Amino acid sequence: MFKKKPKNFILDVDGVLTTGIQGYSEKGKIIKFFGPHDHDGLKLLKDKIKISFITADKKGYKISKKRIVDDMGFDLKLVSEHDRFSYIDSKYAKKDVVYMGDGIYDAEIIQKSLFGIAPNNAREEAKKVADYVTKSNSGEGAVLDASLKILKLFFKK
Amino acid sequence: MFKKKPKNFILDVDGVLTTGIQGYSEKGKIIKFFGPHDHDGLKLLKDKIKISFITADKKGYKISKKRIVDDMGFDLKLVSEHDRFSYIDSKYAKKDVVYMGDGIYDAEIIQKSLFGIAPNNAREEAKKVADYVTKSNSGEGAVLDASLKILKLFFKK
Amino acid sequence: MFKKKPKNFILDVDGVLTTGIQGYSEKGKIIKFFGPHDHDGLKLLKDKIKISFITADKKGYKISKKRIVDDMGFDLKLVSEHDRFSYIDSKYAKKDVVYMGDGIYDAEIIQKSLFGIAPNNAREEAKKVADYVTKSNSGEGAVLDASLKILKLFFKK
Amino acid sequence: MFKKKPKNFILDVDGVLTTGIQGYSEKGKIIKFFGPHDHDGLKLLKDKIKISFITADKKGYKISKKRIVDDMGFDLKLVSEHDRFSYIDSKYAKKDVVYMGDGIYDAEIIQKSLFGIAPNNAREEAKKVADYVTKSNSGEGAVLDASLKILKLFFKK
Repeated sequence: MFKKKPKNFILDVDGVLTTGIQGYSEKGKIIKFFGPHDHDGLKLLKDKIKISFITADKKGYKISKKRIVDDMGFDLKLVSEHDRFSYIDSKYAKKDVVYMGDGIYDAEIIQKSLFGIAPNNAREEAKKVADYVTKSNSGEGAVLDASLKILKLFFKK
Repeated sequence: MFKKKPKNFILDVDGVLTTGIQGYSEKGKIIKFFGPHDHDGLKLLKDKIKISFITADKKGYKISKKRIVDDMGFDLKLVSEHDRFSYIDSKYAKKDVVYMGDGIYDAEIIQKSLFGIAPNNAREEAKKVADYVTKSNSGEGAVLDASLKILKLFFKK
Repeated sequence: MFKKKPKNFILDVDGVLTTGIQGYSEKGKIIKFFGPHDHDGLKLLKDKIKISFITADKKGYKISKKRIVDDMGFDLKLVSEHDRFSYIDSKYAKKDVVYMGDGIYDAEIIQKSLFGIAPNNAREEAKKVADYVTKSNSGEGAVLDASLKILKLFFKK
Repeated sequence: MFKKKPKNFILDVDGVLTTGIQGYSEKGKIIKFFGPHDHDGLKLLKDKIKISFITADKKGYKISKKRIVDDMGFDLKLVSEHDRFSYIDSKYAKKDVVYMGDGIYDAEIIQKSLFGIAPNNAREEAKKVADYVTKSNSGEGAVLDASLKILKLFFKK
């Protein structure tokens, strides 16, 4: 159990809350895939820590927004992969941040956050610097795993 | 072989009859995925036990209804996760219920039913209290596995 | 190498040529998933043995037809699961049939054909009576595996 | 580290940049599935080697084009499977080509290129002649794996 409680849980979207797969038709990116367990986890956590999402996916932004903002009620910011580290670094104190990501550009943020999390199917580059690798893959409960871990580490009496 | 035959087989929908994955477009939740074997199992069982489905997914209700009510001819009730246990508890005698679920809110119902079932890819919280964990994942035959098990345990001469 | 060459290669559709997954929207069954390798296998075989498909899926018939009849040029017959065995039994001599299926109703046909095949992810009931279980899952090359096996067993000089 | 730097990285599309799965509705082929990591890899590589894609999928060409040409900015040529080897052979010097493919028709090209790559879930026929088999499956980072390998072998100082 940590003494200091983090204030923010920031999550990447694709490959963390989604399976990572992006469906394309002739019209372009039309579909993303979310799992059945993750919202249950975030609901257990949302009164204890500020939850927000970050994405670099401009073309799929409206799809992610529909799920995250409209259906679940969380914030979602569009920030390019290259600007992601400096965006978080400038906006938050590292000791206040729990970060969850899956890609090669997430590795540095995972490493420098108070507590960094990667889904089981994340890139090796992200997993090897993570404080916690979830048992579940993204879209199959990785965010619920992460939520239960955060509850246990920081918020259990 | 059990002496008392249960009267009801109640199943959760997402992650039990579906793969658990929910496809989102810009318009919201638009698609769910069902497997090729489960209806075969339910057909073997439907003259022996009352089969009904329960779901907490309001936004995907019409999709689940299309498959379960319109195409397969079973009942489907919309009950929130938090109310699920008390709904079943108030409506059915525990000794009459075989229940199949996959999530953290299903665990208590699985545990207290006459016979509780979880798919192979269910949450650990559900699997560890289940009387039977199917060999197949949800959407890949978990409900057929469950149906064959119920037939064998309760209805074989 | 068999001395007698079979005349017909009959295949089930869902869970054999498709992944088995059926996508539902509010409108009903709208999508099925085919793999990248199977057509390559059938093209190697089609001048040597008559290839035809059989399906019990009435609601998804038009989807299967689009892929099998319109795009690949093979026959597709709609026959219910219960009638499948007697349909094949009455129409073909068993010694002329190579059959590939994945479900509990396919087991008897697989067993009684000259050569019966099941995909790696078929139901146990089908796999345990098959002469050959493919290395690949359905939708990931199971039909190409089967085609190469048929070529080798029956048509190599 | 190789002394000679290849000039071209040529990739097959289905089963390499996509999961290989093709979604069909009643209207025909309507959807393909791309992963979250591959574009990150290609961006690391594109100033060092010419990247181009080749596909035999006429009916899904517009879908592939949307992702590859419109969204990622790379070339995409439609060449039939049977003509693929002679097309590449006539257009490029073998010593200049890194090739990545997954099917039985890709095996010969993989073998004869300077450096041949196959995704982890490629056909055995392709994998057994590849110089490098990626750790990831197609659609789950196989092209990022390949990009990092090419960077390391040919372009690291």
